[in-house]
Parts: sequence; C-alpha cells; structure tokens
Amino acid sequence: VRQDRPVSDNEPIFDLLALLALEKLGDDRFRGQSNPDTLTRVFGGQVAAQALIAASATVAPDRPVHSLHSYFLRPGDPSTPIDYEVERLRDGRGFSARRVSARQHGKVTFTLAASFHVPERAVLTHAATAPPVPRPETLPTLKELIAPHLDKLPKFLRKRELPVDIRPVQGYGDQFRLWSGKPAEKVDKDIIWFRSNGALPEDPAVHVCVATYVSDLMALDAVLLWHNDYSDTSTANRVLGRTDIAMASLDHAMWFHEPIRADEWVLYETTSPAAGLGRGFAVGRMYSADGRLLVSLAQEGLFRSQES
Amino acid sequence: VRQDRPVSDNEPIFDLLALLALEKLGDDRFRGQSNPDTLTRVFGGQVAAQALIAASATVAPDRPVHSLHSYFLRPGDPSTPIDYEVERLRDGRGFSARRVSARQHGKVTFTLAASFHVPERAVLTHAATAPPVPRPETLPTLKELIAPHLDKLPKFLRKRELPVDIRPVQGYGDQFRLWSGKPAEKVDKDIIWFRSNGALPEDPAVHVCVATYVSDLMALDAVLLWHNDYSDTSTANRVLGRTDIAMASLDHAMWFHEPIRADEWVLYETTSPAAGLGRGFAVGRMYSADGRLLVSLAQEGLFRSQES
Repeated sequence: VRQDRPVSDNEPIFDLLALLALEKLGDDRFRGQSNPDTLTRVFGGQVAAQALIAASATVAPDRPVHSLHSYFLRPGDPSTPIDYEVERLRDGRGFSARRVSARQHGKVTFTLAASFHVPERAVLTHAATAPPVPRPETLPTLKELIAPHLDKLPKFLRKRELPVDIRPVQGYGDQFRLWSGKPAEKVDKDIIWFRSNGALPEDPAVHVCVATYVSDLMALDAVLLWHNDYSDTSTANRVLGRTDIAMASLDHAMWFHEPIRADEWVLYETTSPAAGLGRGFAVGRMYSADGRLLVSLAQEGLFRSQES
Repeated sequence: VRQDRPVSDNEPIFDLLALLALEKLGDDRFRGQSNPDTLTRVFGGQVAAQALIAASATVAPDRPVHSLHSYFLRPGDPSTPIDYEVERLRDGRGFSARRVSARQHGKVTFTLAASFHVPERAVLTHAATAPPVPRPETLPTLKELIAPHLDKLPKFLRKRELPVDIRPVQGYGDQFRLWSGKPAEKVDKDIIWFRSNGALPEDPAVHVCVATYVSDLMALDAVLLWHNDYSDTSTANRVLGRTDIAMASLDHAMWFHEPIRADEWVLYETTSPAAGLGRGFAVGRMYSADGRLLVSLAQEGLFRSQES
C-alpha cells in the first residue's frame, strides 16, 4: 500500500518503535529503555509515549485512547530503565480510564492519566479546518534545511536523526532559511508537515504514540516565536530555542478527536497564547492531509535564563 | 474597597464558599459536601474546585497553582459526602505537584493532578488580548435575560441562583434574547462577563476555585454553538444545551497564567474546535477587565442523544 515509501531497517523510526516495545514486568507493570543517544535527560515525548503504550496495553482494543493529561515531575535519567505502573481507575461500558506513574531511582518522574472510549454514533459533528499551506511534497525537509549549517549547531545535534520526516512550513525551521539567505518573517504559528520515516504497524496505539512523541518535539518552540529577532541571523537557534534560554516541559495534554495515521502526512501547528512568571503556554492542532482536525494539544513549559 | 458592591449574607456565593470549606479528616484527607439543591448528580465544577482546594491546602502558600488536569470518572452522588485524598507527588525548590482522588461509595469518581509554582522572573512575557466587547455594566444580567421566560424552563432551573453575576456578551444566553424578540446571530464563540456576587476572601486559592467552578458552567455549551438553529426560537434551550442532547464533562484542564480575581470582572470566551464519535471538545480563555489573558482551559464532553 505504500510503494512510494521504501522502508529501510536502519531508519530511526525503528529506534522509536523499539522504545515503545516495553518489557512486561508483571500485572500492569512495564519497563522502558531510553534512546542510547539521549544526552542529559530523557526526552519528554519518549516518556509520554511509553506511558501511553503502557496504559493502552491494559485496555481492550475496541476502545482507543481519546485523551491524555500528564505532568513531567523530575528530569528522566537516560542511563537507567523507567518503570511504568498502571492503575485501572475505571472500566465502564463505554469508557476506560488509567493512571500511570513513571518511576526511576524510587521517585515518580512523570504521571499520566488517559481515557479510552468505544466510538459512538455522533449526535454532533464538526471540525476546524486546516490553514491553507503548500503540500509537503513541494517543501524541503528539515534535514535539507539544516544540512548547509551543521557547523553552526551544537555537536550533539549534528548527528541527530529524527524518526519522522519533517517539512517546515513556517516558523519552525525559519532560522535555517535565514541562514541560507532566504526571507522569513515574523509569524504567530509554527507549522510543519510530518510523517514517520517508513510505514508503521497497523496498531492504532502506535500511531497515537508516534504523534505524541512528535508533538513534544516542537510545542514549546511556539512560545519563542513571539520573541524571535528575525533581523539577527546569527545568534538565535530556532530548533533548540533561543540559546540564552533553557526550557523544559511541565505538562502535556492531548485530545484525539479522530484516529490518526502517523505514517501519512499530518499538518501540525502550534501557537502560544501566553508566557510569563517563568512559564510559557502553547496549544497545538494536528490535521489530516485533507484538512480535518484530528488532534488538539496543550503544553506548558518552564523558561529560564541559561545563566540562572 | 468594594463600596459599589454591598455583600448580603444570603447570596449564593456563600453557598459556594461553604462548599470550599472542606472538613479535614486527617493528613492529606478531606471531606466535602454537595450543594443541597443539586439534583441527580454533583456539578463537575464543584468537584474540581473542592479537589483543587484540597490540593492547595497541602502546598506552601508562596506557590500558587499554575495548572490542573482532571478526569470525571463516575457521576457524583449529591446525597453523600465526597472524600478527597491528596498524594504529594513532589515538593521541589520551585514546584510542587499533587494528585487528588475523589471517592464515594468506595469508588474513585474524579481524579485531578495540579502543579504549583513559586513565580519567577519572566525571561519571556506575552499574552493574547481580549476581543473587543461591550463593558459589563452596559449589558443585562443572565438573570434579567431569563426572567421573562421562567415558565419555559424546567422547574429545577427556575429557582437556580448562581454564585456569580453573569453578563452574556454573545452566544451564551442568546436563546433568551431570541425569545424576547431581539436579534441573535450564529457565532463561533460563547462570550460572557462574570464576577462573584459579593466580595471574596483574599486567599488566591479561593479566586482560582471560583474561576474553576464557573468555567465548568459553560465550557461545553460552545460545542452546541455550531449546531444551534437560530430560526427555531421555541425548542432549543441554550442554557442547558439542546434538550434532545444529554451532555457530561469528561475532563477539565486549566492553566493559570497570572493571578485571577474572581470578584472583579472576568471576560470568559469558549469555542469548540471539534466534535464527533459521541464527544465534543471545547477550549476557553479568561481575560482581565483590561484585556490580559489570565487563564486558558480545555474540556471534553460526552454528547449523547437523550433517547439513547
């Protein structure tokens, strides 16, 4: 079905799928590993995706996840496994609810609650529609945008391979356009296309987890959009955020309005309604290639001066 | 300080404040009562506010709540007390996190996680601004809009007194305008002004809890906006939602970007990006009277045909 997309077995999507293959420790207890090239702390999207796959493993397959709410409590240590414990809050006729605690070194590092729902006949149906943007095939990949500027990136980022093909539309990736002498202007939304590098298994939980993983890659970047100086093409690094600012995810919430396929093109837009008091808030939406809203999300982050 | 607003001791705001005065059962365990005029199920905003005040009672007062994430798991029984148990997930230098379980009849009816943060020097500050709307003083109250139409309302609603003064701006309350022969047109946002009926104690946690309570009053109404038939002035009851549709809150998340005073005018707008498969999703914002974004929120609801 996907003849246009040869799947090679050394693509980073397989690293991501490996991260989602949790070890079962016992009833409702699972163990996950971290990506070996992770640096000082575990990537939030990885923990959220692992916790969600742990919760999903305890729920009947006829009820897909429709929402998740999570908090990042402590930085994850990539050198040691993460243990996930699932609490079965409820199994009703139409809904199941789970709470997951991720633990390392005896402490809760992350907590997630998720709800699962047997799809019902809709009495009301509507959906916001995607903004008009160029098709992904007409856009360069993030990798192509970055390639001429690898020497300007921190060393650990140069060899970073993402499990998804990202096609920046606006905002996200503009710094590389500027560095290449192409125009970029102030916008209030980051927009990208993404899809997995290679086809994914059919299991809908895997698609949701890949979308969760990707969502955490760039949600907080939208907070920086308001403060980007497009006249300065040297200092700002839009992929990591401003180099003088350290940021960390505080929470992450997602609502899955419809099934999502993460190996087909997804349009992902984020914006930031507010920042202050050391925090910044971002909201996002994911649309199908034909413009239907599939996912809403919200994330708050901590923004501190790198010096502090 | 509020000479313009005489506080009478029989206003419903005192019922709400009484609901927030939880009984302390032991370390991190609290008991709450429900409003005696509650009908078949406990109002979600009451449970969320009580769980939040329980969590706040276990956190140092120098760190106000900045976000909450919650799930409604089972309908609350108004005839029996609700027990709240707080788990201390973390007390760090800058942040505290709590998880609260509400129980009735031995079952978890509601779960909330909340995060508290010592405000920091902001390295980034921005905020969305409020839409241009008429000042609250120029608008009729919800009570005044309803008054001529009490006979059309279900009996239990006729005597309902809200703890807040609501001034509908658009969407919310339009049905009563239509019934009075005034024009109303299709809009994509519900907008109201609200403030407590009477001054509130200084404790910032009380203001946050009142805002939480109010937010749950109308968030899901925005899902119905897309489907309202403004040519039919007889059947739709916009305060309760369409009479042929039963709705229930599934979750509730809020982000408090800045301190909010619920006894000063707050502009509250909600809209719905998507509905389908039996669910509807709404997002909202609360602004100060001078137009600064104070609160963001998101809520998903279950929408079923009344016949089912």
